[in-house]
Amino acid sequence: MFPLVTEVRVRFAETDAQGVAHNAAYLVWFEVARVDYLAEFAGGYQAVRDRGIEAFVTEASVRYAVPARFDDRLRVHVRCRDVRGARFRFDYLVERSGERVADGWTQHACVDARTFRPTRVPPWLAEAIARAEARAAE
Amino acid sequence: MFPLVTEVRVRFAETDAQGVAHNAAYLVWFEVARVDYLAEFAGGYQAVRDRGIEAFVTEASVRYAVPARFDDRLRVHVRCRDVRGARFRFDYLVERSGERVADGWTQHACVDARTFRPTRVPPWLAEAIARAEARAAE
Amino acid sequence: MFPLVTEVRVRFAETDAQGVAHNAAYLVWFEVARVDYLAEFAGGYQAVRDRGIEAFVTEASVRYAVPARFDDRLRVHVRCRDVRGARFRFDYLVERSGERVADGWTQHACVDARTFRPTRVPPWLAEAIARAEARAAE
Amino acid sequence: MFPLVTEVRVRFAETDAQGVAHNAAYLVWFEVARVDYLAEFAGGYQAVRDRGIEAFVTEASVRYAVPARFDDRLRVHVRCRDVRGARFRFDYLVERSGERVADGWTQHACVDARTFRPTRVPPWLAEAIARAEARAAE
Repeated sequence: MFPLVTEVRVRFAETDAQGVAHNAAYLVWFEVARVDYLAEFAGGYQAVRDRGIEAFVTEASVRYAVPARFDDRLRVHVRCRDVRGARFRFDYLVERSGERVADGWTQHACVDARTFRPTRVPPWLAEAIARAEARAAE
Repeated sequence: MFPLVTEVRVRFAETDAQGVAHNAAYLVWFEVARVDYLAEFAGGYQAVRDRGIEAFVTEASVRYAVPARFDDRLRVHVRCRDVRGARFRFDYLVERSGERVADGWTQHACVDARTFRPTRVPPWLAEAIARAEARAAE
Repeated sequence: MFPLVTEVRVRFAETDAQGVAHNAAYLVWFEVARVDYLAEFAGGYQAVRDRGIEAFVTEASVRYAVPARFDDRLRVHVRCRDVRGARFRFDYLVERSGERVADGWTQHACVDARTFRPTRVPPWLAEAIARAEARAAE
Repeated sequence: MFPLVTEVRVRFAETDAQGVAHNAAYLVWFEVARVDYLAEFAGGYQAVRDRGIEAFVTEASVRYAVPARFDDRLRVHVRCRDVRGARFRFDYLVERSGERVADGWTQHACVDARTFRPTRVPPWLAEAIARAEARAAE
């Protein structure tokens, strides 16, 4: 169901005085997975930016199941869905050796990089996402 | 309605190549406001930790309304509610000169600092929160 | 000797699993102090950027004396010196209640924001720095 | 000469409004390389911590040669030297396709994890480092 999985290792800088990964680090890992997804299926996030489009995060949500610790190797599964108009959404599942560590999603809106006004998800990007997700669903 | 407001100024390190504050920075600002809340009304987060209790973030959610930019002075309003059993929740509103920049909430669970097992929110903390919120509601 | 001092409070997100502030956080605090310095004496860093100049960090150095801990209120003293050609340098002293926590310096180079080629520190900026430092030396 | 090289990819979260990697990110990458070094040659940093020893960073220094940008694949070369008493030092070279992006070093001191008092680098660690460095020098 998830077309891509990315591995991240918990950095010491990402831990906090509770001895676990800080809650904000998960949004960074989501982003790492999202960037990998766009690299794998859509020519890269920079390719999107190079065409004058920025994708802003409009919502983010994380559910933390069990703490992640320094040096843990986490697998971040990622899929994209609900591409409509200027908007699209990514879902994430973070697991460690099959145990769910966290999950979440981010909602995005495309804007024109100069005017910062909403602009439709370009057809080539919508199609690339649809193809990737269809293959994963098979 | 919000018993406390904290000011944060967007650091250059918190911006990203889109020229705006990175989406993960908001969770850090939420935490800054939460820490200030506990300092103001409950003797400080360290006081909670010193009594052998850690409060873990179990969920976090952010809605981004408009971008925040380098050096923006943001006001983070914070309130606590739904204290029940081991759990409690903070709500946040981030604004700049009265304009909503973002809002969100975090859900928390108290655990015993040694065993990491859930433990009830201690009565002194629940009462301190209730008093602060009641005063703000007047 | 230091024309400006800025207060930062150690954020929980800035601590690591050693229970102290992470070593990279100090470079962020140096930046916060530097930005305050430019705001106080030179119309703000954004004013520099608005005139088509970016200032890159070309070197950074930190000596850590004693650990900083969560919620510590640190005072970051800052001064600027050695303005010559495209270059200038900031010195920092981080202390807590008079105890030296760390010190360090950063070296900077002005570049044209479009071409990224080195460009002289603009005279108005060099003069603003010279005035601030002369006043502090009195 | 460098016994180990680690690859990091510049995260979007690590860029700033100048469009390049933020200067503090390099200290985090140095740490990633250092952790990999200890994993490869000394059983891992966690193994060091598990034996009741913490290694604090006492100094850090970075020279930035050219900017690193979003999604750049950087190679961080790392070596350890000057192991004496409680102290040791790591050197780093960050390059992109053979071009030097930055270099630097960090100085460390071993402390007892309970008392935080300086303690000698344990012989097994000093020997592991010496072996790794000797092999690289061949």
